[in-house]
Amino acid sequence: MKIVRFGRGSWGILEGETIRVTRGPGGSFTGKRIPLSEAKLLPPARPTKIVCVGRNYRKHAQEMGEEVPPEPGLFLKAPNALAPHGASIPYPSFTKSLHYEGELAVVIGRRMRRVPEEKALFHVLGYTCALDLTARDAQKTDLQWIRAKSADGFCPLGPWIETELDPSDLRLRTFVNGEVRQDARTSAMIFSIPFLLAYISSFMTLEPGDVLLTGTPEGVGELRPGDEAAVDIEGIGRLSVRIAPI
Amino acid sequence: MKIVRFGRGSWGILEGETIRVTRGPGGSFTGKRIPLSEAKLLPPARPTKIVCVGRNYRKHAQEMGEEVPPEPGLFLKAPNALAPHGASIPYPSFTKSLHYEGELAVVIGRRMRRVPEEKALFHVLGYTCALDLTARDAQKTDLQWIRAKSADGFCPLGPWIETELDPSDLRLRTFVNGEVRQDARTSAMIFSIPFLLAYISSFMTLEPGDVLLTGTPEGVGELRPGDEAAVDIEGIGRLSVRIAPI
Repeated sequence: MKIVRFGRGSWGILEGETIRVTRGPGGSFTGKRIPLSEAKLLPPARPTKIVCVGRNYRKHAQEMGEEVPPEPGLFLKAPNALAPHGASIPYPSFTKSLHYEGELAVVIGRRMRRVPEEKALFHVLGYTCALDLTARDAQKTDLQWIRAKSADGFCPLGPWIETELDPSDLRLRTFVNGEVRQDARTSAMIFSIPFLLAYISSFMTLEPGDVLLTGTPEGVGELRPGDEAAVDIEGIGRLSVRIAPI
Repeated sequence: MKIVRFGRGSWGILEGETIRVTRGPGGSFTGKRIPLSEAKLLPPARPTKIVCVGRNYRKHAQEMGEEVPPEPGLFLKAPNALAPHGASIPYPSFTKSLHYEGELAVVIGRRMRRVPEEKALFHVLGYTCALDLTARDAQKTDLQWIRAKSADGFCPLGPWIETELDPSDLRLRTFVNGEVRQDARTSAMIFSIPFLLAYISSFMTLEPGDVLLTGTPEGVGELRPGDEAAVDIEGIGRLSVRIAPI
């Protein structure tokens, strides 16, 4: 099932090219139908927080010159960073090094507090694509990764949530202007999704709608004004945004 | 005017020892009145993010062995960290070094996006007390300050918002079991509140209810299970919580 959020905050289920409007995410049908082509998509989650994992693919840790961590290395993106599929994202003036990082995103469906690994997936609503936009220079100079990771528009998310999916071995590709730049499988993650959810929920309650970004594989690099960046994940679909021309 | 949030999410204005219930924060009166002594207070804000400033008091930067930064050093606390006045906060199992950091908190009243310094205070609803609980050991070992700053209960906030206050020179004291441990004036901040709000909103939209923690002065230190920690700020009042006994 593909859950979409659109318009001024409506929810629906995507069936082929038609949205069947629902009461809330995955709720009962209202009877209304809207063609997908006429809907303005929104990020398909309303998180109270976006928890992210750094260095969760060995080859990406290597390309950054970093060691593989013994425990998950977490950071946060604030909700102001969210942007929908199709967005035009300004290149912020504080950075000269805006990077794409394609990632599989997990959307929480049920509150998680100290949930063991073997029960973690029961709390997941579904999966979507995320672009973890990163100001690489600010990441190096600033005390913590706030400007680097949470500037407005730095978390494109979408196009929808796929609820029926085994996330453990999916092909993930990132494209810049149609050229493939990242191409890996989620099976290469160092820490699995159930492990990450159990780890996070051991000290931090996760709420319905909260989002986990599971880390980026090797092949990160620069975006320039005018570039189109897309994240394509097997079984989900393609999230595409544009960096606004100057 | 003192704005309180209480019960299951009601808002009100505190007049002496009586809460006059309002429609939303600072909204019109419903006509209901409740004695403060019968109300269970909640954190007086519902932020989409809590933005914090590290090293904003020179003597605290010195006691941490850090240089005074040329720009504000920001970090985030996630909303799951919020706890009300009177809370009992578990000492998390992942840390052996839980620290108090008393701080003046700013609550946003109007959306802020690229607001210049001279107009910043127009967007502020008011001020309250915050305890920036910090796992000092995890702060040193982890990739970013997530466990260190955003564990459940790590952001006690309250007891209420004071809307009529000049924040530029207030006495701030932190007490542990009634003994004063921090005693400074907000005039010792390196970056002023208008400067911080302008800086943050230059890249990160601030929403109504968002909270800025303005940094802690010198005198931070350990809390043990069973300790009572309180932050008292001139013109606001006293926020008090207990670290749960083991």
